[in-house]
Amino acid sequence: MKLIGYFRSSAAFRVRIALNLKGITVEHASRHLRKGEHRAPDYVALNPQKLVPALVLDDGEVLTQSMAIMEYLEETHPAPPLLPKDPVGRARVRALSLIPTADIHPIQNLRVMAYLREKYDQSEEAAFAWSRHWIETGFDAYEASIAGNRHTGAYSHGDQPTMADLCLVPQVFNAQRFKVDMSRYPAIQRIHTTCMKHPAFDAAQPSKQPDAEP
Amino acid sequence: MKLIGYFRSSAAFRVRIALNLKGITVEHASRHLRKGEHRAPDYVALNPQKLVPALVLDDGEVLTQSMAIMEYLEETHPAPPLLPKDPVGRARVRALSLIPTADIHPIQNLRVMAYLREKYDQSEEAAFAWSRHWIETGFDAYEASIAGNRHTGAYSHGDQPTMADLCLVPQVFNAQRFKVDMSRYPAIQRIHTTCMKHPAFDAAQPSKQPDAEP
Repeated sequence: MKLIGYFRSSAAFRVRIALNLKGITVEHASRHLRKGEHRAPDYVALNPQKLVPALVLDDGEVLTQSMAIMEYLEETHPAPPLLPKDPVGRARVRALSLIPTADIHPIQNLRVMAYLREKYDQSEEAAFAWSRHWIETGFDAYEASIAGNRHTGAYSHGDQPTMADLCLVPQVFNAQRFKVDMSRYPAIQRIHTTCMKHPAFDAAQPSKQPDAEP
Repeated sequence: MKLIGYFRSSAAFRVRIALNLKGITVEHASRHLRKGEHRAPDYVALNPQKLVPALVLDDGEVLTQSMAIMEYLEETHPAPPLLPKDPVGRARVRALSLIPTADIHPIQNLRVMAYLREKYDQSEEAAFAWSRHWIETGFDAYEASIAGNRHTGAYSHGDQPTMADLCLVPQVFNAQRFKVDMSRYPAIQRIHTTCMKHPAFDAAQPSKQPDAEP
C-alpha cells in the first residue's frame, strides 16, 4: 500500500498514526499542498477530490477521506482496535472523531484560509483569527464532551488510544501553530501529552516526516 | 428513542432518512436553530457540542454527530444495510458520505455564514456566494467521484441507497436554497431524483416535518 500525504496535513497525520498503531508498513509519497501539487492532473486522476491523503491499495484501488481510511484499516487489520466493542461506545468515539474532522479542520484548513484572504480581502492575521475561532469553538465542544465524562480515561475513551485521539492530536498541532490558548482545555492537553509519549503518535508527527520543512 | 433535530438541518435530515429506511420509529423534538434554542442550558447539558441532531436512547444515553448516529443505527439495526459488505466498498461509501458531511456542510452552515456576516462585515449576498463556492467545490469532487465510476448504480454506490445518498440529498436541498447551478452535476441530479422518489427520503424532507416553516 502507498499513502499519499503531506507532512503538515492533519488528515494524513491521522492516518499515519493509525498505520503506526496497527503496525502496518506502507510506502509514503507526498504532494506539496502549498505548491498546489494536489491539483496536478496525475493526482486528480487518482483522487478527484484534490485532497490528501489517499491510500493506494496493492490492486490499484484508491481510498480517500481520512475517516473512511481509518475505518477500512480497522475492518481489515482489527488489532489493536481503534474503536471499542459496544455500539454506544463506538458512537461516542466516532462523534468525538468528527469534532476535529468535520466541525473544525475543514473550516480552518489551507484552502479556506486562502479563499478568505483572496476573495474577501482579509489579511493573514484576520485569516489566523478565523482559524483560531473555529478551533476554539470545536475544542470547547470536545473539552465539554470529555471532561468529567465517565467514559474518558487516560485517552479520550478509556485507557487505550481510539480513533478520537487520532483526530484530536493533529488538531492540537494546528491549534499550537495558530496560537490558541491551550490552557483553556486541560482535559485535551492531558490527553495530548499522553498521546505524544506513545511512539505511534510521536513517529507520525509532521516534523518527523521525510517531506518536513522547518 | 428521541431524535432532537430541526426541520432544515442537513445533519438531522440525514438521520431522519436512515430511521425511515430502517423502519425505526422515534419520538421527534426540535430546537429552533435561528432562535438559538440549541444554545439553551437544558440542551447544552444534553449535547455540549450545541449542534443538532442528538439521538436520546431509551436508557438516557445521548448520541451526537449524524455520521456517528448513522453508524450506530447500522450496527444495531442492520437491515436494510446502509453500507455494502466489502471493506473497499464500505470505504468508498464512507468517503462519499464525508464529502458533504465534512468538506461542504460545516463550511457553509448557519453558524459560519452568521460569523462571516458579523465579524468580517460581509453582506448577506457575500455570505451566500461563500456557501455556493464551497457547495460547488464539494459537488465538483462528488460528481467526479461517481460519474463513470463502475461502482455507481441507480444510487451513489450500487442500486440500493447507502449512507452516501443520505448525506448527498440534504446537501442538494441546501444547494437549491443557495441557487447553485445544478446542471453542472448531472450524476448528482440523477441520483437525487431517484432518491426523492423513495418514500424514506420523501418523508424526511424539511417541508414535511412538524416544525417546518415556509
